Amino acid sequence: MKRYRNRRIWDFEHELKMVDRDDDDVKKVILGIDGGTAHTVCICMPFIPFTHHLPDPLPVLARTVAGCSNHNSVGETAARESLEQVMADALARSRSTRSSVEAVCLSVSGVNHPTDQHRILNWLREIFASDVRLFVENDAVAALASGTMGKLHGCVLIAGTGTIAYGFTEDGRQARAAGAGPVLGDWGSGYGIAAQALTAVIRAHDGRGPLTTLTNSILDTLKLSSPDQLIGWTYADPSWARIAELLPVVVSCADAMDPVAIDILYNSVHELASSVKAVVERLELCGEDGKDEFPLVMVGSVLEANKRWDIGNQVMSCISKDFPGVLPIRPKVEPAVGAALLAWNFLIKHSHQEAMGS
Amino acid sequence: MKRYRNRRIWDFEHELKMVDRDDDDVKKVILGIDGGTAHTVCICMPFIPFTHHLPDPLPVLARTVAGCSNHNSVGETAARESLEQVMADALARSRSTRSSVEAVCLSVSGVNHPTDQHRILNWLREIFASDVRLFVENDAVAALASGTMGKLHGCVLIAGTGTIAYGFTEDGRQARAAGAGPVLGDWGSGYGIAAQALTAVIRAHDGRGPLTTLTNSILDTLKLSSPDQLIGWTYADPSWARIAELLPVVVSCADAMDPVAIDILYNSVHELASSVKAVVERLELCGEDGKDEFPLVMVGSVLEANKRWDIGNQVMSCISKDFPGVLPIRPKVEPAVGAALLAWNFLIKHSHQEAMGS
Repeated sequence: MKRYRNRRIWDFEHELKMVDRDDDDVKKVILGIDGGTAHTVCICMPFIPFTHHLPDPLPVLARTVAGCSNHNSVGETAARESLEQVMADALARSRSTRSSVEAVCLSVSGVNHPTDQHRILNWLREIFASDVRLFVENDAVAALASGTMGKLHGCVLIAGTGTIAYGFTEDGRQARAAGAGPVLGDWGSGYGIAAQALTAVIRAHDGRGPLTTLTNSILDTLKLSSPDQLIGWTYADPSWARIAELLPVVVSCADAMDPVAIDILYNSVHELASSVKAVVERLELCGEDGKDEFPLVMVGSVLEANKRWDIGNQVMSCISKDFPGVLPIRPKVEPAVGAALLAWNFLIKHSHQEAMGS
Repeated sequence: MKRYRNRRIWDFEHELKMVDRDDDDVKKVILGIDGGTAHTVCICMPFIPFTHHLPDPLPVLARTVAGCSNHNSVGETAARESLEQVMADALARSRSTRSSVEAVCLSVSGVNHPTDQHRILNWLREIFASDVRLFVENDAVAALASGTMGKLHGCVLIAGTGTIAYGFTEDGRQARAAGAGPVLGDWGSGYGIAAQALTAVIRAHDGRGPLTTLTNSILDTLKLSSPDQLIGWTYADPSWARIAELLPVVVSCADAMDPVAIDILYNSVHELASSVKAVVERLELCGEDGKDEFPLVMVGSVLEANKRWDIGNQVMSCISKDFPGVLPIRPKVEPAVGAALLAWNFLIKHSHQEAMGS
């Protein structure tokens, strides 16, 4: 038998069974979970038969939120607890139990190796019966699915605090670029843009670089009086997200035609486009003649920071020069819905495989 | 009366006074301390009358070593204890007491503002009588003094894990460039070189950059089998010093004519030279015609990593194109001796000022 780490979380199931025991028509559901560093979102969707098209808008039985489920940030115990809680809440609100669950797809940052996947699958396996289909993916995969309604084909570019490009071919090959943190060169990200802006301020102050309006804009934003004080400010807390919050200041300076800010944003555009190109070329998403159509899903604060200077549009026009078949997509649903759609598509694929095998 | 935080450390003074109480000829001494992040070194030198030239080699009564005295790293209590212990040990070994001390110069990393200086001066003031002259400086100042035998004139370039350029004019004006950490653009440093090399490996792996021999050399050094594993390696401990230790690998690849490694080192040379140029120009160390002589003291593992590819020599030839009067100096004494010489020179300056004021 399975071990339940935390029985109280699931107490609602007994109550539901008492009330609903005459109800033979148990409705199957799918759980999609987006596990980020800030919080964890779980979506409970009804299971839609494979013969049906997806309704628009998608039916969502419940949406629940819990704390961080990234074990790198909060430790394994807290991460598992957040995860279990957010799923139990979603099922309770949908008046469902684990026995109604057809499939679970958890997309979570920090899944870079099969070992990461196996460890997290083992957590889920302790919670669900063995016939429940479980899928664990890198968060980029659910972001792609949120733009393609669950179909794993094309490329996704995420550019928020960090950046990653991730792609899939229709026959299941995959490739990624960047996504390794700033030490390893994620310079197109919000952190990368902000760090280059801070560097430009120090260079101007030292006499190593041109004067820039970034100096006053950043000092005003941070309520500092001199560039010297930036040293203390960064040492006090060098977390990437805190530094990446300076992104809008850089975009505003570029809007006001500051050449240093514009250079930094063009550099970011070049970096982001090169990540996408690397993935597209390795997977030949553009076909042999380079003109095949493929979706490019674009997600994250950097690509959405569209004032006059629109980084996302610049990246897209840069990519479409090389790949005229690129189809830009800005997702209308959140990544947790993408994860649920992913689970649904995995189920379809498995049922096809079983049908062909039988 | 002064408060002694830790009387036991100074117990030796009572014993010395008992033994030496008939000795009227108390020899005055100077303490020079180099407080780094790894350890703290203290030098006790006899006080040399101002009318004398400095003997060669310099007389050193004692050299002692204690733990870290950087309060950012180990906290204030541990930092103060290391500092007090290393000075007491140096005096005890020199058979001197605090009443023999003419001056103390402490040069320590992380002194960027007058507030840093005042806080550390207050620590010293609790230990020494009010007639002892106390000086607290950024560690770059003692590094300059270690090359100029205590004279504050010229520029010092330090390039180890981090990098900073610091300069003084003969009339006491000072300027600095860089020294603000990698987030704020210290890219010529050992950390900067190694981080760019790691980035190049990831780029090659992603298909975003050219193939490079850095890949195998770095993976071999770190005993990893794939560039993917570099992500885990950097996340496990992103400390700058650990990453900077890859510097020799990059220099070896440049020696073997790897174009990516050579590019990274040329970039470092350009960054380091630009820091020096910024300081020299702001202080007009090169005079109005740009040809005046001035010393450039060069310190740190990056400038000493002289295989065939010699970063220090490249930096120097880059600087001497703009400033033909530059006089390169590789110090023969350690920074703690530089700090002691600095104290001696400060005393000379003060005695001149007093003589002029009287």
